Amino acid sequence: MHVQHDDQGVTEPQGYRAGAVACGIKEGSTKQDLGVIVSDASATAAAVFTQNRAAAAPIVLCRERMQAHRASAIVANSGNANACNGEQGMSDARTMGAHVAEKFGLPQEDVLVLSTGVIGVPMPMDRVDDGIARVKVERGGGQDFAHAIMTTDTRMKSCSISLEIDEVPVRVGGAAKGSGMIHPNMATLLGFLTTDARVEPVFLREALGAAVAKSFNMISVDGDTSTNDAVVLLANGAAGGALLHASHPAADLFSEALSLLCVDLAKQLVADGEGARTLIEVQVAGARNAQDARDIARAISRSNLVKTAVFGGDPNWGRVICAAGYAGCDFDAGIATLYLDDVCLFAQGFGLAYARERAEALLKQPSVTFRLELGLGDGAATAWGCDMSYEYVRINAEYTT
Amino acid sequence: MHVQHDDQGVTEPQGYRAGAVACGIKEGSTKQDLGVIVSDASATAAAVFTQNRAAAAPIVLCRERMQAHRASAIVANSGNANACNGEQGMSDARTMGAHVAEKFGLPQEDVLVLSTGVIGVPMPMDRVDDGIARVKVERGGGQDFAHAIMTTDTRMKSCSISLEIDEVPVRVGGAAKGSGMIHPNMATLLGFLTTDARVEPVFLREALGAAVAKSFNMISVDGDTSTNDAVVLLANGAAGGALLHASHPAADLFSEALSLLCVDLAKQLVADGEGARTLIEVQVAGARNAQDARDIARAISRSNLVKTAVFGGDPNWGRVICAAGYAGCDFDAGIATLYLDDVCLFAQGFGLAYARERAEALLKQPSVTFRLELGLGDGAATAWGCDMSYEYVRINAEYTT
Repeated sequence: MHVQHDDQGVTEPQGYRAGAVACGIKEGSTKQDLGVIVSDASATAAAVFTQNRAAAAPIVLCRERMQAHRASAIVANSGNANACNGEQGMSDARTMGAHVAEKFGLPQEDVLVLSTGVIGVPMPMDRVDDGIARVKVERGGGQDFAHAIMTTDTRMKSCSISLEIDEVPVRVGGAAKGSGMIHPNMATLLGFLTTDARVEPVFLREALGAAVAKSFNMISVDGDTSTNDAVVLLANGAAGGALLHASHPAADLFSEALSLLCVDLAKQLVADGEGARTLIEVQVAGARNAQDARDIARAISRSNLVKTAVFGGDPNWGRVICAAGYAGCDFDAGIATLYLDDVCLFAQGFGLAYARERAEALLKQPSVTFRLELGLGDGAATAWGCDMSYEYVRINAEYTT
Repeated sequence: MHVQHDDQGVTEPQGYRAGAVACGIKEGSTKQDLGVIVSDASATAAAVFTQNRAAAAPIVLCRERMQAHRASAIVANSGNANACNGEQGMSDARTMGAHVAEKFGLPQEDVLVLSTGVIGVPMPMDRVDDGIARVKVERGGGQDFAHAIMTTDTRMKSCSISLEIDEVPVRVGGAAKGSGMIHPNMATLLGFLTTDARVEPVFLREALGAAVAKSFNMISVDGDTSTNDAVVLLANGAAGGALLHASHPAADLFSEALSLLCVDLAKQLVADGEGARTLIEVQVAGARNAQDARDIARAISRSNLVKTAVFGGDPNWGRVICAAGYAGCDFDAGIATLYLDDVCLFAQGFGLAYARERAEALLKQPSVTFRLELGLGDGAATAWGCDMSYEYVRINAEYTT
């Protein structure tokens, strides 16, 4: 199984159409900023939403609607988060969904609504309504959709993966938007996943939860989430075949495909973090348990000092070891080993006389891996981050309400 | 009670001498980098140390020695953290203490040793030994000591406070070093406090714990601590008077003085954060409880997006509300109110049409206060942070192992 890029992403699976339109949601913008995905048949749906207590109106609406575990369409916009807009925000989110439902002849409760952009500015509903009236969906519309959800992203994130279940070809497609360096803060992360597999709802939820835990949650720290974060997955069954459930022989294969796709999207998000030049992969092995491994990998990948060291081309292993030390997990520097790609920087409590030129050259590559072996148990996890540059500060100092 | 600056800090209280010397601990450096504080009499001591699992050798040594709750001298150096140096690091820390003990005729176990600087480089013990042999201590040496502990700090942090206990004048003095933007990462924070009060050991520990919780811990998030963080307090009783204990009528006054001093030092640290132009004070009131208030205040003050917004002069209240939302505490944006100094930015779920010019002008001041009222209970707390600038990235990209 390989993840495909340069394809139609969310419209690669059968039975989905998508499209986008430029509404000018952000005053003066001419980019596509409203996208729609429509499934030909009502789909089984699963979703993971932000833990933020100031969840935006569309998130509140989606949580409500996801109780039925079904959806037929998604409307998403960039340029306005519809967060902190009080009752008007809820009403506007419902109206967006209602207009999409009406246009495509769907029940209102089958339409999910997601937004990203500035917080606390009322949705310009006249322009949004006009956009929904104009938007066209088609089989090849996946890339347009992926473009429409971009905010400070510099590249569209879209991909798909193919597998066979009982000899029936099945596809999973995805699109995402992120940026904002993703963590340690709260750039909105939106993920849209589609599959033409027929999937039992409880298993679909479990598979999505597991995939998100290994991917989006390893770039976006739990709790450090924006008002609008969401990952949604539709399964419309258009590929036919038997119903996939937890004890089906192909269940693991489907879960693995979903994880591969989500990890690919997550890495695309990090690599396009605001001002990022270098993707930092942090592999932790030998932790006391899996949770410790995750916490340590995330502590390292979100450390501002590790990020700035990578930007500065400095193989500063002390900052990596220190971050591991403050993750709140079992850690013994005296038995830990740290590699930068294939260069061992630190072993058994000591920094090594590594080839500094080679290490510095590695840090100038577009991606770099820190591998930390703890020697305490079997826990392993991988997290991703990016370097922190002047450009990060510039973007976030200039981006305005 | 007012905190005094421009005085001798740790040598303002009676019975303390201090001094510093330039040893060249960091290759080629000519700044003062080793300081000593000596108490004329053995002092009651209390300390708070880093929670980092990769604690440096001097921290391990001090933890051991603090079990007796007594100390007569402190030796501290900048330029080398003596962290991740294995057994040699422990041996070097002991040697530093032993040489100071010998020079000043003190028991070895009465000498505390603290270090800050690069991690993983062996201590240049020949230069350190030579420095200890040369260092002179005197009554007016507090500022020299405060200089010697600076790393990327641009200003010395030193102050003192006077109070009366049973009509006996008593002083508390302090010096600190920080920088590195303090949080969300792990620049070493060292605090040195001295008093000539006579204080019972358990009460001294409690008073220090309470003062640190309100001050250094509100700039440096628990757990996000460096390998070398420490705050130590000596009480030598040189002022005379009755023994101060928890039920003494002046106990609260002493605690308050200690807290005032620690808050003053903590604010000095933040104001001198790497690349910082603006001190950000975050006052949270009306939280469900005190812990929630602390967590929310710290989530806001450490948010990279709040920091960059302040640097950019952008009164972006959405980022403040969002950070409050992800702190993991009870929070309802619909009843929260947010002020920037005296300008109300957000109330009852809505951004207000505030005077933008005035708000932007406030953000250009050397200090600014966000006040968030949650309307949920009586919990209140204050945290401090600083803005994040290009300079922060430059310093941390260029500072090398």
